[in-house]
Amino acid sequence: MMNATADTLTMLRAINATAAFNRWCGFEVQHAAPGEVELAMAWKPEAGQYAGFLHAGVVGALIDTACGYAAATQLGARVLASHFAVNCIRPAVGERFVAKAKVVRAGKQQVFTHCELYAHASGEAKLVATGETLLCVVEAEPAAAKN
Amino acid sequence: MMNATADTLTMLRAINATAAFNRWCGFEVQHAAPGEVELAMAWKPEAGQYAGFLHAGVVGALIDTACGYAAATQLGARVLASHFAVNCIRPAVGERFVAKAKVVRAGKQQVFTHCELYAHASGEAKLVATGETLLCVVEAEPAAAKN
Amino acid sequence: MMNATADTLTMLRAINATAAFNRWCGFEVQHAAPGEVELAMAWKPEAGQYAGFLHAGVVGALIDTACGYAAATQLGARVLASHFAVNCIRPAVGERFVAKAKVVRAGKQQVFTHCELYAHASGEAKLVATGETLLCVVEAEPAAAKN
Amino acid sequence: MMNATADTLTMLRAINATAAFNRWCGFEVQHAAPGEVELAMAWKPEAGQYAGFLHAGVVGALIDTACGYAAATQLGARVLASHFAVNCIRPAVGERFVAKAKVVRAGKQQVFTHCELYAHASGEAKLVATGETLLCVVEAEPAAAKN
Repeated sequence: MMNATADTLTMLRAINATAAFNRWCGFEVQHAAPGEVELAMAWKPEAGQYAGFLHAGVVGALIDTACGYAAATQLGARVLASHFAVNCIRPAVGERFVAKAKVVRAGKQQVFTHCELYAHASGEAKLVATGETLLCVVEAEPAAAKN
Repeated sequence: MMNATADTLTMLRAINATAAFNRWCGFEVQHAAPGEVELAMAWKPEAGQYAGFLHAGVVGALIDTACGYAAATQLGARVLASHFAVNCIRPAVGERFVAKAKVVRAGKQQVFTHCELYAHASGEAKLVATGETLLCVVEAEPAAAKN
Repeated sequence: MMNATADTLTMLRAINATAAFNRWCGFEVQHAAPGEVELAMAWKPEAGQYAGFLHAGVVGALIDTACGYAAATQLGARVLASHFAVNCIRPAVGERFVAKAKVVRAGKQQVFTHCELYAHASGEAKLVATGETLLCVVEAEPAAAKN
Repeated sequence: MMNATADTLTMLRAINATAAFNRWCGFEVQHAAPGEVELAMAWKPEAGQYAGFLHAGVVGALIDTACGYAAATQLGARVLASHFAVNCIRPAVGERFVAKAKVVRAGKQQVFTHCELYAHASGEAKLVATGETLLCVVEAEPAAAKN
């Protein structure tokens, strides 16, 4: 028998598997709890910018996706990103990237989330980006929900 | 003999060709003038989120990259994105996407840019996202420049 | 008989007059049209930071208020700011400041706006800040609307 | 003999006293440590918007100022705000407001900061806003520093 957390993880992994770009990136939901998600990705050269760092777009994709999933732990797939912002605080260089997102406030119409992105290399984790996503709560329309 | 605009376009296309993720996305620099760039991408299913819209991460990649190139028309490759933000104003659905970026202000230490992203379909263009990037001017280090 | 634009201007001036901080700052709604507003303020030393520039908080107040009023030209007082962002692109020095805000997209649940802030001095206007506000459309609750 | 923390507090209070708008608002630096600041303000009706909440501009002023002071604990007055963003997550209603800012990353050219704003009322503190400021490190020009 699965508990609520296992159910949430299963739901997020199912959503994650249906998104073509998430599959291409190799996003994995590695942890989920109410209002909290960890989304990981192994480095792949095709996701790099010209200096060989993780492309800012992929940094943004990790942050926005992790934030959306954090919101979904509380509201299911009824959330849509309106705005997201990314701070590039260090070069995104690593073997593996982990985005840790959490819900700051879930209201009736909106969800505020925050995220930290860590690059793991040689057994060390370094904060390389922070970001946030503001999501809008929509009526149940699974087909139009979280990107 | 090439003029300045043609030179700029050539420089940006060369930078664009060296970034693995830009190649995977199929980014094309279709226009460049001092302080202005248009970056285009044809829809590809692998870049979609689960409802089949362009993934917010790819929307962010188009905006951040176009803004970086707009800054590069004035400062060359000596710019690094510090912060970018994206407003998702309509579902990003289309056959082709065009990011139109411009420099709002290029200072000695920082460059402020703004971008509009249009989705083209059936001969019509619709504004689907807006965004901005704040870039830091760095000493000439081509290898560490624009992500 | 007043036309729609004059009515809008009257409505915004009435809202503006009820906000204590707007009165203290001396905000004046100097222009309004559907989706567009100009909000002005004369320099006053009490609104300065330590170097004698307009304080970033007052810059933000001008931008956020002008954006809210631009949204109100289309939706009345049923809008609430969720998020606002400000780019400080030049020192905010001038005799008079004018925030020009416009609606980028008014949806059913959200309104996206953008704003430019100009400093006027010696007959010249200079762009000193840009910004944006994302507003949430709420059910008619005049008492809880735009701050 | 004063220790480093007391010196920092003294420096920030001196800066704070020179800013006319900070004095008008009644900003008080109530705590400072390396990379961390708490800035407080008692509610005053003149700082309200029309529904009697703290005006979003003053919310932004508290956040931007606290972030600037957090940066100054590490870099002195050689920092200038480039960009700040505010999330209005609950109505800013209270007897006293406390902005808790911290440095996320202080680089050579830029400082990334984050802030939480709490409203205190009836012995309880509630998170009413979050925000962030990106600051630029400038050459020692005290007169042009933090706004």
